[in-house]
Amino acid sequence: MSSKIINFSPGPSKLPEDVLLQVQRELLDYHGTGISVMEMSHRSPEFMKIVTDAQENIRQLLNIPSDYTILFMAGGGTGQFAAVPLNLLPSTGKAVYLNTGTWSAKAAKEASKYGCVIEIKPDFKSSSNEIQWDHDEDVSYFYYCSNETVHGIELNFIPDTHGIPLVADMSSNILTKDFDITKFALVFAGAQKNIGPAGVTLVIIRNDLLGKQSVHCPSVLNYSVMAKENSLHNTPPCFNLYVMALVFQWISEQGGVKVMEQRSNAKSQMVYEVIDHSSGFYSCPVPASVRSRVNIPFRIQNGNEDLEKQFVDEAKRRNMIQLKGHRSVGGIRASLYNAVTVDEVSLLTAFMKDFMKSKLQ
Amino acid sequence: MSSKIINFSPGPSKLPEDVLLQVQRELLDYHGTGISVMEMSHRSPEFMKIVTDAQENIRQLLNIPSDYTILFMAGGGTGQFAAVPLNLLPSTGKAVYLNTGTWSAKAAKEASKYGCVIEIKPDFKSSSNEIQWDHDEDVSYFYYCSNETVHGIELNFIPDTHGIPLVADMSSNILTKDFDITKFALVFAGAQKNIGPAGVTLVIIRNDLLGKQSVHCPSVLNYSVMAKENSLHNTPPCFNLYVMALVFQWISEQGGVKVMEQRSNAKSQMVYEVIDHSSGFYSCPVPASVRSRVNIPFRIQNGNEDLEKQFVDEAKRRNMIQLKGHRSVGGIRASLYNAVTVDEVSLLTAFMKDFMKSKLQ
Repeated sequence: MSSKIINFSPGPSKLPEDVLLQVQRELLDYHGTGISVMEMSHRSPEFMKIVTDAQENIRQLLNIPSDYTILFMAGGGTGQFAAVPLNLLPSTGKAVYLNTGTWSAKAAKEASKYGCVIEIKPDFKSSSNEIQWDHDEDVSYFYYCSNETVHGIELNFIPDTHGIPLVADMSSNILTKDFDITKFALVFAGAQKNIGPAGVTLVIIRNDLLGKQSVHCPSVLNYSVMAKENSLHNTPPCFNLYVMALVFQWISEQGGVKVMEQRSNAKSQMVYEVIDHSSGFYSCPVPASVRSRVNIPFRIQNGNEDLEKQFVDEAKRRNMIQLKGHRSVGGIRASLYNAVTVDEVSLLTAFMKDFMKSKLQ
Repeated sequence: MSSKIINFSPGPSKLPEDVLLQVQRELLDYHGTGISVMEMSHRSPEFMKIVTDAQENIRQLLNIPSDYTILFMAGGGTGQFAAVPLNLLPSTGKAVYLNTGTWSAKAAKEASKYGCVIEIKPDFKSSSNEIQWDHDEDVSYFYYCSNETVHGIELNFIPDTHGIPLVADMSSNILTKDFDITKFALVFAGAQKNIGPAGVTLVIIRNDLLGKQSVHCPSVLNYSVMAKENSLHNTPPCFNLYVMALVFQWISEQGGVKVMEQRSNAKSQMVYEVIDHSSGFYSCPVPASVRSRVNIPFRIQNGNEDLEKQFVDEAKRRNMIQLKGHRSVGGIRASLYNAVTVDEVSLLTAFMKDFMKSKLQ
């Protein structure tokens, strides 16, 4: 491939080129061991160091205090949809799920296998962003998804749960924004957006929530078991974990989460600006207050599928790929995770303007 | 590293060098797409082809008929220890577990969370290899581990279950030996011995066993859900799956499972021969009838830990690594999975003879 591909995939998604080049360089010989990370015992000192370095790095990046445990697990976000209730929800218990789109709805459905789920739907079109719910002390936890990749909805505030433990699926916007981890009981994120290759899941859990798991919780989804054995209860997805560690390192070298946040704001503003100044040629169906910085869904002429197809095809000819909207909502979607550069986004916005101009002539 | 490392790791373990070189070559540009497999949508045609090619390849390698479904899952063997009962054992049901060592014992313990487990211990020192058990038509399945990596015990026969569905953990010896899949209801194998990098698990299930899962089965461990969505219910461990597909391809190119079996027989015989002709300097604690071809544990002078440490250290100086026995049994262990060559094993046996000679002088 001679010219560079620009990858706007919603996930698995672009990784920093520096990380991929390092992976490529050391693929057959990790740090002079003469073997690949893929061939390395997970109990070897070299691999244990990868795990502890990754933990230290993410602890620093997100400013995680010592009363939280960092776990690396398998099974992705969908695995966590089961793990959360299996570890935190007694079978006679209740949990509140904020339904903001596809992913929180799936999480609620999975949780309802294990206990009583109370689903609430926020109204983001109202003037206030406060989540209205009848809080109830018997609720084991309050669950939400901080960014819905399919619908492009991102909560720009942390819900007030009136003391109920707060659980968040941050799969698609973790490490793109600074946030106060102490407001959360548990945060999880599948790797394949901002963290690394699919197959490893980051879990950050406050220590007082360990030890509450159901007797039916599979060991691989058991936070206590994983915490006790430092994520090495069984063989972890070693290579995935190693690439994740390199991504953490890369974010640190770039200046940390605050720099990622600045870039994320800049990138998303560039796209929304084109949309909002297109006199309706482009439109985003999401209320301004909850527009996502990382997944921007938009339509052309309020859903002209023919033009949308032309847009995606023409973008592809310009090496911009994975711009088609999710099959359940249609349209176009640009995903702007950490590895997507400001320069790449400026090529996209230039193309958006060109395309609009060519169609309005 | 100037001279080649010989990796006898019990897992994660050596991968074929040709596979690693190919992974390295196409790491930043998979087949002209301009992106890495790690950056590729799991719903892209390119990735879907990796999945279906891998399925077709393993179907051919193991001669799997069409009434079996091939799944690629996350969570490793330990995930399957829960998945098997969650999918096949009603909470009021019974399952028989053949306890042959660490891994089958762990599987039985995990299964006992979900139903009644009847453990039986075989006596491999008896003249007959038949497994004696009071068979009972109410049993949902009969479970065994075809090769115990820690103890170096491999069953060279398929247990007669009198019609009870047979489930096998073949994590450490799958693809090293031809076998009749139609004798099994379900076979699973974590990748990190003979299949690929840790993080992906192969499951082969007879179709009539689908749809029997517990209502409490997490979606990521649900065979029916995975079968219905061709292992793409959620984002799979894509990169691991891709490397696995390359290993399947490599085995095909080498001549298939029969060739792997010939090599496995040759390699293990070489080591056992040195042990058995050492006049007791080396000894293997496993009865001859169930000695493993892939994990060979042995002691020096019936457990002289000082000499064993010297052996491991001296081997390391000769670039032969990961020969220390499992921490629970001590001694030495050589793991000879498919990627370990006959030449590499001949270097090990030459060293074993040298070491013995030097100590007996």
